[in-house]
Amino acid sequence: MEVIRSNFKDNLSKVYEAVEEADFLAIDGEFSGISDGPSVSALTNGFDTPEERYQKLKKHSMDFLLFQFGLCTFKYDHTEEKYIMKSFNFYIFPKPFNRSSPDVKFVCQSSSIDFLANQGFDFNKVFRNGIPYLNQEEERQLREQYDEKRSQANGAGSLSYISPNATKCPVAIPEDQKKFIDRIVEQIEEFLKKEENESLELEPCTGSKERYIVISKVDEEERKRREQQKQAKEQGKLVIGHNMLLDVMHTIHQFYCPLPDVSNPLSVQMRLKLLDTKLMASTQPFKDIINNTSLAELEKRLKEVPFSPPKVESAEGFPSYDTASEQLHEAGYDAYITGLCFISMANFLGSFLSPPKNHVSARSKLIEPFFNKLFLMRVMDIPYLNLQGPDLQPKRDHVLHVTFPKEWKTSDLYQLFSAFGNIQVSWIDDTSAFVSLSQPEQVQIAVNTSRYAESYRIQTYAEYVEKKHEEKRAKRKCTEDSWKEMERKRLKTQGAPYISQSRYYYSFLLYFHQRHSAFEIVHTWHFSLYVYFINLHVNH
Amino acid sequence: MEVIRSNFKDNLSKVYEAVEEADFLAIDGEFSGISDGPSVSALTNGFDTPEERYQKLKKHSMDFLLFQFGLCTFKYDHTEEKYIMKSFNFYIFPKPFNRSSPDVKFVCQSSSIDFLANQGFDFNKVFRNGIPYLNQEEERQLREQYDEKRSQANGAGSLSYISPNATKCPVAIPEDQKKFIDRIVEQIEEFLKKEENESLELEPCTGSKERYIVISKVDEEERKRREQQKQAKEQGKLVIGHNMLLDVMHTIHQFYCPLPDVSNPLSVQMRLKLLDTKLMASTQPFKDIINNTSLAELEKRLKEVPFSPPKVESAEGFPSYDTASEQLHEAGYDAYITGLCFISMANFLGSFLSPPKNHVSARSKLIEPFFNKLFLMRVMDIPYLNLQGPDLQPKRDHVLHVTFPKEWKTSDLYQLFSAFGNIQVSWIDDTSAFVSLSQPEQVQIAVNTSRYAESYRIQTYAEYVEKKHEEKRAKRKCTEDSWKEMERKRLKTQGAPYISQSRYYYSFLLYFHQRHSAFEIVHTWHFSLYVYFINLHVNH
Repeated sequence: MEVIRSNFKDNLSKVYEAVEEADFLAIDGEFSGISDGPSVSALTNGFDTPEERYQKLKKHSMDFLLFQFGLCTFKYDHTEEKYIMKSFNFYIFPKPFNRSSPDVKFVCQSSSIDFLANQGFDFNKVFRNGIPYLNQEEERQLREQYDEKRSQANGAGSLSYISPNATKCPVAIPEDQKKFIDRIVEQIEEFLKKEENESLELEPCTGSKERYIVISKVDEEERKRREQQKQAKEQGKLVIGHNMLLDVMHTIHQFYCPLPDVSNPLSVQMRLKLLDTKLMASTQPFKDIINNTSLAELEKRLKEVPFSPPKVESAEGFPSYDTASEQLHEAGYDAYITGLCFISMANFLGSFLSPPKNHVSARSKLIEPFFNKLFLMRVMDIPYLNLQGPDLQPKRDHVLHVTFPKEWKTSDLYQLFSAFGNIQVSWIDDTSAFVSLSQPEQVQIAVNTSRYAESYRIQTYAEYVEKKHEEKRAKRKCTEDSWKEMERKRLKTQGAPYISQSRYYYSFLLYFHQRHSAFEIVHTWHFSLYVYFINLHVNH
Repeated sequence: MEVIRSNFKDNLSKVYEAVEEADFLAIDGEFSGISDGPSVSALTNGFDTPEERYQKLKKHSMDFLLFQFGLCTFKYDHTEEKYIMKSFNFYIFPKPFNRSSPDVKFVCQSSSIDFLANQGFDFNKVFRNGIPYLNQEEERQLREQYDEKRSQANGAGSLSYISPNATKCPVAIPEDQKKFIDRIVEQIEEFLKKEENESLELEPCTGSKERYIVISKVDEEERKRREQQKQAKEQGKLVIGHNMLLDVMHTIHQFYCPLPDVSNPLSVQMRLKLLDTKLMASTQPFKDIINNTSLAELEKRLKEVPFSPPKVESAEGFPSYDTASEQLHEAGYDAYITGLCFISMANFLGSFLSPPKNHVSARSKLIEPFFNKLFLMRVMDIPYLNLQGPDLQPKRDHVLHVTFPKEWKTSDLYQLFSAFGNIQVSWIDDTSAFVSLSQPEQVQIAVNTSRYAESYRIQTYAEYVEKKHEEKRAKRKCTEDSWKEMERKRLKTQGAPYISQSRYYYSFLLYFHQRHSAFEIVHTWHFSLYVYFINLHVNH
């Protein structure tokens, strides 16, 4: 379903309903560009740490516009043993609401625009009919301006702004409402005295009968059950994406709040479950039987043995996609086939159980190891960014950091290290690169022989990291206070009672979490997955 | 005529021809935004100097894309007493040529995009079919890369790059061509001995008979005449625009070279004649009879007495525009009606001659006072930026520069100066503004009374300017050398024999000139125009 400015309000309830009933959601975004740096390759070094990569994307990718947002909801029908799918393709454009609302400037990257143009992307639909949006802070500011104008119009001074939080303080009961409140208090006191576990429906405060308060008595067990239910609800649905790091970052940045500075250790309660199908496809048991993990190729591969094409049907009133006539790079379609890929791969895991299971649900423990680990493009030895624990930290004891004159080319580095056999060069910038040798033992030899060199400088990866940390420690001291201030503001804002309509349907992505920045040595992902997989095989 | 990527090459000769035969050209551009600053109003302060305004536009407007370029050529048919018009509407998009060519990032401003979307602007045509382009430096770099690749492919080392200029050095004549060259030399020597003023057609060097060298003898007078002709040709056509400063800056920046730093005094030979119809309409004798100088309103006004609608027809094979069904903000249409406005206003000047003239040509002395003066938006006392002489420098002895806490609002300034009667406030930024008083005598009183104020600070405009100059002098010292270096490079590039096709049709805007930055007191524009106008009235 195409959702644009003119039909957004009418279809919003359909979006809520689809999200509410879904077993899992798939998302995809189309952006106006990828990297505002000198080149896309400058954005990705093969030896980036997950934190460095996050920082690079935050710095060089967030000024682009997410102008098409695909959301595809999947609900399993146990009777019919198939998924019912609802697909939404949102066109997004920050049309200014009025003269005092934000006039967003966004960057376009010619190569990305050209790519989408060749795919038949409809830019006119984006710019003429895109749904406008505000992030939390912009909305707060706009409301503040309105309140200020209103209070000025009411004759109050310009400084009489009342914080929304102020309304949460105890208030004096107006004389004409005292009788009503007294009657309610009496009712509740009587209800508490009774032994029965009935519930009490209070009289509506306003004329409308649609909203009123119900008071129920629960025992300790019921209270716990309800709390768990609430927690489970808060933890959110499983949201899947293919190579989804940028999609997640853009969604949060554009519709919710500034991206957190990852290097600042915060512990925020995780309420989000993400799963990246590209990471899943690049991991055992899939890694060995899937050659190409690009979305289109993956979708094709997963229709063939040993996989089975999933049974998915469009819900009534929703248009269906045909995977035969590819509509790749329409966000709604990409979200759809991402969902198909996930279902096939999840079900494939079920085939290892004894007895084998044809259907593996989004809540199955089988897929938990993939939660909140987002695929990292072009990093040699770290497959993912971990959103809920420390990042992997491979040894890299065969890696050198080399500094040299800006005239040097890759061939100069090959020549310099010609004595060491095969090497791999990962450019950092004009005057530095990582060089990985085939043997860790060669590292010290290379460092020693370079000691008297004048034009270049070699250090071990460990030395390089240590120096960088020292610089960061000095810097962090300065910024820590300002971050604390920001977080304080953020929390304060969350308490505010205002929620914009345009933000509702993005609420499933509300919380993006601080990753721990502590550098700890952890067992590698592939090993842990392997163990998990063996266990899976043996125990079930 | 719509010119897009697919029909650009086929229509290029038509563009050349139209420009070549034209009496004057009108241009207009549509951009993806105006200001990347916090607000458009921050871009324009009522007391900007022309130089400051130029710097602001250079800093805050050049990252947007000129994505539609309108060119309308006007040729006067003396027999029919009407103009023949050819209109071109170019869609422009920096589609990357290949992976190593520049991947341009440009900014979009939501309000501008929304404005154009409401006018029915076709973004799909821009992004799918826009004509790609390179500026001079990008083209040079791309060619260099190609040459390097080619020479590497030929087995030469990576450092064997040969500068294009090197081909201009004397070359040894290959053995097999020596006879041919000798014969030519002989021919020329014989020709020079003869007394007749014939010309000598040399034998073509290549097989093709289409290009060969003709040698003619000319006397001193003829030589001078030809030189003047050449100079006149080089000086270029009259190019008109409506409120054209940004159009001119974008055109140069995007298609030719980085904009010059105006504060660096350079004297480049002026080869360009620009005329701004908005400035013309805001100046006597038009000022008093034209209320609204916006393009659409101006065009309507100039159809009525005392003006006469110009006689203009589309050339054969060119589509015509109908001013009754407005297509405003299509660049080609805007350029067209800018041309109409110019013709009406120029002819109106002719009505003051005795005997009156119905047709005033683009080469008439009557319009010369308007040359190379570009309208300045929202500057209180300086109507234009002067491209070929010192800028106007009004007295501003009634203006104060005030610094204050960032909480202050306009009302606080009104209160502070309440004793001085009417004031005008021009915000500079959050913590400073110009305040103009109604009487220059009040200035010193205001400065004196503020002497002991702690929260704010007042200085005269002259003091403010003096301090700014001191800062600039210190800064300029540092940048002067780098500018010299740049200019050196620019001149060197001009000598290179390569010219790109995509740049040809912009060559009429090749030179944008350094304005003098010396602050000299000159008679004001309005006064000088008045004198000119009186002279016009009396002498003809």
